[in-house]
Amino acid sequence: MAKTAGIVVIGNEILSGKVVDANSPYLCQELRPLGVDVRRIVVLPDEVEVIAEHVAAFASAFDYVLTTGGVGPTHDDVTIESVARGLGRQVVIHPELSALLQAHWAERPAAVRDKMASVPEGTQLLMEASLPIPVLRIGNVYVFPGIPKLFRRLFDDIKERFRELPYHTRHVYVRARESTFAHHLEAVMTAFPDLMLGSYPEVDNPAYRVKLTLESKDPAYLERAHEHLLALLPADVVVDMV
Amino acid sequence: MAKTAGIVVIGNEILSGKVVDANSPYLCQELRPLGVDVRRIVVLPDEVEVIAEHVAAFASAFDYVLTTGGVGPTHDDVTIESVARGLGRQVVIHPELSALLQAHWAERPAAVRDKMASVPEGTQLLMEASLPIPVLRIGNVYVFPGIPKLFRRLFDDIKERFRELPYHTRHVYVRARESTFAHHLEAVMTAFPDLMLGSYPEVDNPAYRVKLTLESKDPAYLERAHEHLLALLPADVVVDMV
Repeated sequence: MAKTAGIVVIGNEILSGKVVDANSPYLCQELRPLGVDVRRIVVLPDEVEVIAEHVAAFASAFDYVLTTGGVGPTHDDVTIESVARGLGRQVVIHPELSALLQAHWAERPAAVRDKMASVPEGTQLLMEASLPIPVLRIGNVYVFPGIPKLFRRLFDDIKERFRELPYHTRHVYVRARESTFAHHLEAVMTAFPDLMLGSYPEVDNPAYRVKLTLESKDPAYLERAHEHLLALLPADVVVDMV
Repeated sequence: MAKTAGIVVIGNEILSGKVVDANSPYLCQELRPLGVDVRRIVVLPDEVEVIAEHVAAFASAFDYVLTTGGVGPTHDDVTIESVARGLGRQVVIHPELSALLQAHWAERPAAVRDKMASVPEGTQLLMEASLPIPVLRIGNVYVFPGIPKLFRRLFDDIKERFRELPYHTRHVYVRARESTFAHHLEAVMTAFPDLMLGSYPEVDNPAYRVKLTLESKDPAYLERAHEHLLALLPADVVVDMV
């Protein structure tokens, strides 16, 4: 199963037609080749209750929730408060983030720095970038700023963590009816319960009768399962292996 | 109270990053000057249950629901069935629409014409256009095709029916960081709670750093709020006003 994602775009400026959302199209294009299936996009006004409700629903429906917008220092930046409420967490000052802002934003008012250092309790800072601004991770919710240039730099910096492990695959082509070796397949599944094992008869194929597919994200596990299967199958029925 | 709208964008091709949705930005830009407040956009996969659920929720939450996409003749065009299910209606052949398709699509297969003439029971055809294709109206739900060029022609043809009192707008361009005047914005919002006040940083703009937008349907209220804000902001940071 592919991992799923829901995108929450936050900002009155998009709903009122002042700004065209460039971040959700970017995410759709980027997440697909990483193996993540975007299942929903929603664009919401700057309203705590509405955002909280959607964050809560998305966080339980999808593997990842990515929010964009509403994380600046002004009155209409309500994402942090909303995510916290949606996930049932308190808003707290993050000591590391506070120190970071102290270092980079020394000249700005303390109230602004405090707002920018406020996060839902239990937030992890994701900062693989050269930028002084982190992505916030709260459980399976990733909080990004809305400014597209900044958004892209931050997403690009952390995107590899969304990459799904590719499946490793082995094929075995067999010249025998399924019924003659079905018990061997069951034995392999008993020994290797995490293996994905498929058996596909191809009635009109002159070269073999059944194609077996063995799949796992763990290549060593796959190899052991493959050897186990070959040890069970009569040698003369195996036509080919890939 | 402004009329509200929810936009339902339908199509796997958008979620998988193959196509960028151009219709919801167009609707946001067009509905705003008509005085309609877009409250929500959602992008959904081609799945009947998911679409039905959202259409039902939007139809009771907002004054207008506009759907775009999923109305063609192929297997993945499930909007009609979904809207019908969401609103608890049967799908029926619309006699007028059937006659229209008979006249314009005589050469196409009858099965295709029948699918295209199928609508939720009680559908009204909106056809102020020169086009042979109507917008479908089912209660407060307006069903549009997804193809942007066609979508725009159809929307433009019926858009006057959505017109409300317009919003009045003032812009103030500021040459200072948001953090230095965030407290003034809060003061304005306290004094003018019905004002819609937006603050939009533009990091790469040499002329100003932040664009403030003030909006209201009451022009006198807007002017008072505008004066209040200008009295609070240091005069030397205001670059321009529109």
